[in-house]
Amino acid sequence: MPPLQFSISHRDPTSHARRGTVHTLHGSFDTPAFMPVGTRASVKGLLPQSVKDTGAQIILNNTYHLLLRPGPQLVQRMGGVHKFMNWPGPILTDSGGYQAYSLSAMNTVDDDGVTFKSTIDGSMVRMTPEIATQVQNQLGPDIMMAFDDCPPSIAATSDERDEAQTHRLHSAARGLDAHARLRIANERTVRWLERCKAAHSRPSEQSLFGIVQGGADLAQRSWSAERICNIELPGYAIGGVAVGETFADIARVVSHTAPLLPDQKPRYLMGVGYERDILAAVRAGVDMFDCVLPTRNGRNANAFTPTGQLRLRNAKHAEDQSPIEPGCDCVACNPSAHGMTTPEGLPFSRGYLRHLFMVGEMLGPILVSLHNLRYFQRFMQEVRQAIALGDWNALLLRYPIAAEGFMAVSAPAEPRT
Amino acid sequence: MPPLQFSISHRDPTSHARRGTVHTLHGSFDTPAFMPVGTRASVKGLLPQSVKDTGAQIILNNTYHLLLRPGPQLVQRMGGVHKFMNWPGPILTDSGGYQAYSLSAMNTVDDDGVTFKSTIDGSMVRMTPEIATQVQNQLGPDIMMAFDDCPPSIAATSDERDEAQTHRLHSAARGLDAHARLRIANERTVRWLERCKAAHSRPSEQSLFGIVQGGADLAQRSWSAERICNIELPGYAIGGVAVGETFADIARVVSHTAPLLPDQKPRYLMGVGYERDILAAVRAGVDMFDCVLPTRNGRNANAFTPTGQLRLRNAKHAEDQSPIEPGCDCVACNPSAHGMTTPEGLPFSRGYLRHLFMVGEMLGPILVSLHNLRYFQRFMQEVRQAIALGDWNALLLRYPIAAEGFMAVSAPAEPRT
Repeated sequence: MPPLQFSISHRDPTSHARRGTVHTLHGSFDTPAFMPVGTRASVKGLLPQSVKDTGAQIILNNTYHLLLRPGPQLVQRMGGVHKFMNWPGPILTDSGGYQAYSLSAMNTVDDDGVTFKSTIDGSMVRMTPEIATQVQNQLGPDIMMAFDDCPPSIAATSDERDEAQTHRLHSAARGLDAHARLRIANERTVRWLERCKAAHSRPSEQSLFGIVQGGADLAQRSWSAERICNIELPGYAIGGVAVGETFADIARVVSHTAPLLPDQKPRYLMGVGYERDILAAVRAGVDMFDCVLPTRNGRNANAFTPTGQLRLRNAKHAEDQSPIEPGCDCVACNPSAHGMTTPEGLPFSRGYLRHLFMVGEMLGPILVSLHNLRYFQRFMQEVRQAIALGDWNALLLRYPIAAEGFMAVSAPAEPRT
Repeated sequence: MPPLQFSISHRDPTSHARRGTVHTLHGSFDTPAFMPVGTRASVKGLLPQSVKDTGAQIILNNTYHLLLRPGPQLVQRMGGVHKFMNWPGPILTDSGGYQAYSLSAMNTVDDDGVTFKSTIDGSMVRMTPEIATQVQNQLGPDIMMAFDDCPPSIAATSDERDEAQTHRLHSAARGLDAHARLRIANERTVRWLERCKAAHSRPSEQSLFGIVQGGADLAQRSWSAERICNIELPGYAIGGVAVGETFADIARVVSHTAPLLPDQKPRYLMGVGYERDILAAVRAGVDMFDCVLPTRNGRNANAFTPTGQLRLRNAKHAEDQSPIEPGCDCVACNPSAHGMTTPEGLPFSRGYLRHLFMVGEMLGPILVSLHNLRYFQRFMQEVRQAIALGDWNALLLRYPIAAEGFMAVSAPAEPRT
C-alpha cells in the first residue's frame, strides 16, 4: 500500500472544488487543508499540541533551514522530524530550493543544481535534486517536495516584489530575459524532478510531490503541467505564485493550472495565502495550502477577522475589553472553552493584547498566533463544509473578506472521466 | 473580615519553619510559597493557565513597570490587574521603589520620595509613599508592598554587584558613607511606611505589607524590625537581601531577621532566590518568596535540576534524547502527563531544546521556563511536605543542590507564646 492515499468525498457542482481526506503513515488530514509553517521544526512560539488544538492536522517544515541547522543527519539520528519536534501527525517539507534562491544574496544556478551562500556562516552550500531528496529522506516527512528551479514571476513588477526582482536581476546579469529564463527553469524543473524521483530512497514511507512552474505565463504553465504530471507521483503542487503576484494574477494562474493536474491526486498550492486567494484556489480544485501569514502577522500584532485584519498596536484598542473576534473559539478569544480559568471567564482583551505588544512581551505574539491559526483552520473547516453541503452562502456571509475569491473563480464543474 | 488571613497548620520541631495557608479575596495559597514574577502583567512567554498548571497559586507583578506602561489608571479602568492579565488567583505587587533605584541611571531620593528618569521616554517620574500606594490601589493586587528606601547592601563588594555598586556610588556622591546612608534609609523607611498605611484607600480589599530593611548590619535589621512591626499590618517582608549578597550573607541576615517578625503573620523574603537560599529562609521562618530565576534562566537556556543547572546550549546535549530532568512531570519533560499527544509519548529532548535555542526559536524559552517554574513549585511542595511530616530527609536526598541551605540554618524551635 502506498504511503499516501487520497479519497474525495464531495465535489462542488459550481466549481472544481473537492472535499477529501489524505491518509499518511502519521495520520490523516482533511482537504482542503491549511498547513501552519514550522520553519525550524517549530511553529513559532507554540507547543505542538497548541497547534494541533487550533485544528491543524498537518504542518510544514522548511528543508533549507533544517539543512543549515541542526542538519539532516542529526534530525535523522534523533528519529526524524516527527520525533525531533514532537509532532505526531503528518509533516510536509519543502525542498529548500525557494529559500536557496530567495534568502541568499549570492547564489548560482546551473543545470546540475544551485550553489548558495549559507545565511548562517557564509559557507558555500551545494544543492542538487539528489541532495535535496537525500536531505528530505533523512528528515523523514510524510510528504517531500521536488527540488525545482523556481523562476522569477513575470507578473512581478512592483517595487515591493523584492525577491522576484532580485532574482530577475540575477537572470539579467547572466544575459537572459525573463521569458527565456522562465523557459529554461521550466525545462530544468522537469529534468530535476526525474532526478528527485530516481534519488528518492524511501518511497514506501515518504511521498514525493512534483511542482508545476511557469510563472504567470499560462502557456508555460500548460507545458509544465503536462511534463510534470507525466512523471508518476502521489501528488502535485503549483509553485511560483506566492512571490509577489496580485490577487488577479494568482487567481488567473491557479484557475488555469489546477484543473490540469490529475484529478485523483492531491493538489498543493505553495505559499498561498490570504482568505480570498485560498477560496479562489479551492474553487479551482486545490486541496492543500501553506502560508506564514497567520503566525508572521500574529507576531506583528495583526489579527485576522472575517472583515479584515485588526492592527492591535493601534491606540484605539488601548482600553477595549472585547476579544479580537467576538464569538471566536480560540484560546485568546475564549480561554474558558479551553479549560482555562480566567476571572469571570473573560477573554484576553484587545487592550491587554495591545499592552503586551507595546511592552514587547512574548505572550502577545503567542496569543495572536493562536487566534490567527485557529481563524485559518476554522475558515478551512467552513470551506470544507461549503463543499460538502454544496452551499457557499454561509461561508460568504461569514467571511466578507473572502468574497472576491469566490467571484474570481466560478468555473462550472466539468464532466469527470 | 480582613482581606488576608494566615493560618499555620504545622511547625517544624528542628527550625522556625512553618507550613500554612494564606487566604485572600482571590483565593488561597499554601506556604511556604514561591511566586513567579510577571513583571509587565505577564509571566514571560506563558499563558496564565500554564503558570497555574505548574502549581503556582500566586504571582507577582512589578509596579514600576506597570506604572510606566500601560499606567495604573488604564489597568484600573480595565478592572484591575487580575482581569487585565486574566489571572484569577492572588496577586502581589512590589512598590516600585527597588526598580526606581536600580533601573534608572538617574534618580534622586529625598525625605519625601524618589524622582527617577523613566526608562521608557526619559521623562522624570516622581514616586512618594502616597503615590506608590495610590498606584497599587489602582492596580488592585491582593497584597501591596510598602514604598521603602532600599539602601545598598554593605555586604556587596564584588564587581558583579552592579546594582549595589551603582547605588553606593550615588550615596558616595552625596557625601555619605554606606553606614550612614543605611541608617538614614532605615529611618526613612519607617516614616514612609506610616505614610503608605495612611494613604491606603482599599484596606478592606488589599493588604499592605511593611518591609524590614537594614542591609547586612544585624543591629540595623533589629532596629528596623522593631519599628516596622510596631506598625500594625497584615504581613511583613524582608527587603534588601537580593542585591548581590553571598549565600552566607543571606542566610545570616534572614536567620537573624525572620524570627523578629510577628509569628502569626506571613513573612515574605523579597527577590530570593536559589534553592539553598529558599531552604535556609524557610527554616528561619519565611513563608513567601519571589524570584525571576526560573523564567530568566529559562529564557537563557539554563534548566534547574536537583543537582544543579543544565546549560542547554552546551554541545554535549546536541543529540541527547533524554528530557531535561528524568522523572519530572513538567510539560517539557512529560508532555503526555499534560494530555499532549507526542510520538510514542516522547518528552521534548535536550537535543531539540538545544536546537531551539541555537536557532533562536521562542519555544525554547517557553519550554525551559515551564520546566523551571514547575521545578520550583515542586521544590516548594516538597518543602511543605517536609515541614508537615517533620522529616527533611527525603527533601535533602532529592535536592542535593539545597543541602547547604539546610545546614546553614538549624535553630531549634523556640517555645511559642
